[in-house]
Amino acid sequence: MAHITVPEGIPGIRSLFAFRPEIAAPMSALADVLLHAPNSLSRGERELIAAYVSSLNDCDFCHNSHAAVAACHLADDGATMAAVARDAHSAPVSTKMKALLAIAARVQRSGREVRESDIARARAEGATDIEIHDTVLIAAAFCMFNRYVDGLGALTPTDLAGYRERAKYVAQHGYTAVIQR
Amino acid sequence: MAHITVPEGIPGIRSLFAFRPEIAAPMSALADVLLHAPNSLSRGERELIAAYVSSLNDCDFCHNSHAAVAACHLADDGATMAAVARDAHSAPVSTKMKALLAIAARVQRSGREVRESDIARARAEGATDIEIHDTVLIAAAFCMFNRYVDGLGALTPTDLAGYRERAKYVAQHGYTAVIQR
Repeated sequence: MAHITVPEGIPGIRSLFAFRPEIAAPMSALADVLLHAPNSLSRGERELIAAYVSSLNDCDFCHNSHAAVAACHLADDGATMAAVARDAHSAPVSTKMKALLAIAARVQRSGREVRESDIARARAEGATDIEIHDTVLIAAAFCMFNRYVDGLGALTPTDLAGYRERAKYVAQHGYTAVIQR
Repeated sequence: MAHITVPEGIPGIRSLFAFRPEIAAPMSALADVLLHAPNSLSRGERELIAAYVSSLNDCDFCHNSHAAVAACHLADDGATMAAVARDAHSAPVSTKMKALLAIAARVQRSGREVRESDIARARAEGATDIEIHDTVLIAAAFCMFNRYVDGLGALTPTDLAGYRERAKYVAQHGYTAVIQR
């Protein structure tokens, strides 16, 4: 049960948005810019970063949600995210993505953990300034979303079918459309 | 020097907003709803939570910025925030604020650290559901802002006079007005 009285039966962050609607617009807009808007990193790649950080923070709701959206974009039935969660270094992603995931893992611990050598490695693999910026901010933003959901004890369904169903809609329409649904 | 090429001489998060303007609107709107919009927690109390979490994350830019805004609202020359940073339990704040700061400290470590007993203590001290919600989200949001600023190595001035000057404007006009300035 959530730590505060939220509408019953609504999963995760959506129950918190229903409780405090003023928050929903800026948080959804941020997610949309970072994960859904046009970018040289694909939507699948950005969702992998979000789901990876959520797994490092042990946030099941966000991990399940974004792993499901990543699987939609990558059309891989979740295999890539599962490999990243097991071991990002050996996962079947580009060397640039491996370097960006390493930066995301640093940020998950602390912004102060990021080393100039991490940035140099990403740059050597072809990452642009915007890609480095967005990786840091996606990782930072999920350190917020994860703490928000778990810090208030929001409902976390265990049946993955619901996440997959929702993910189809999010993958197609993005995060600002989804709060109106 | 920042890890990416941002406009020179602009401090902290503002240099990142200048680099990636699409981000500025939702992030500023979120800060404004949490810290500046009308609330049963005073602006000074909410800024104390933001500055406290920033100090726990060792983020000097955000700590200095929000401690300065808190000092404006509390008109106390920074004494309250300094006491909170030294020891939140003995600081000259209400017993409700002590309970909310304890929740914020849990969230700073992980959303999963928040205990039902932390919530019960805050409620016993008179905290409402919205106050508990906002405390958790302010703490979570600063786990994002702190990682964003430090993860990209944004410029952190050491002269406190600049923070104080800026804080006067922010305290009066809020966070959405300030990005247009």
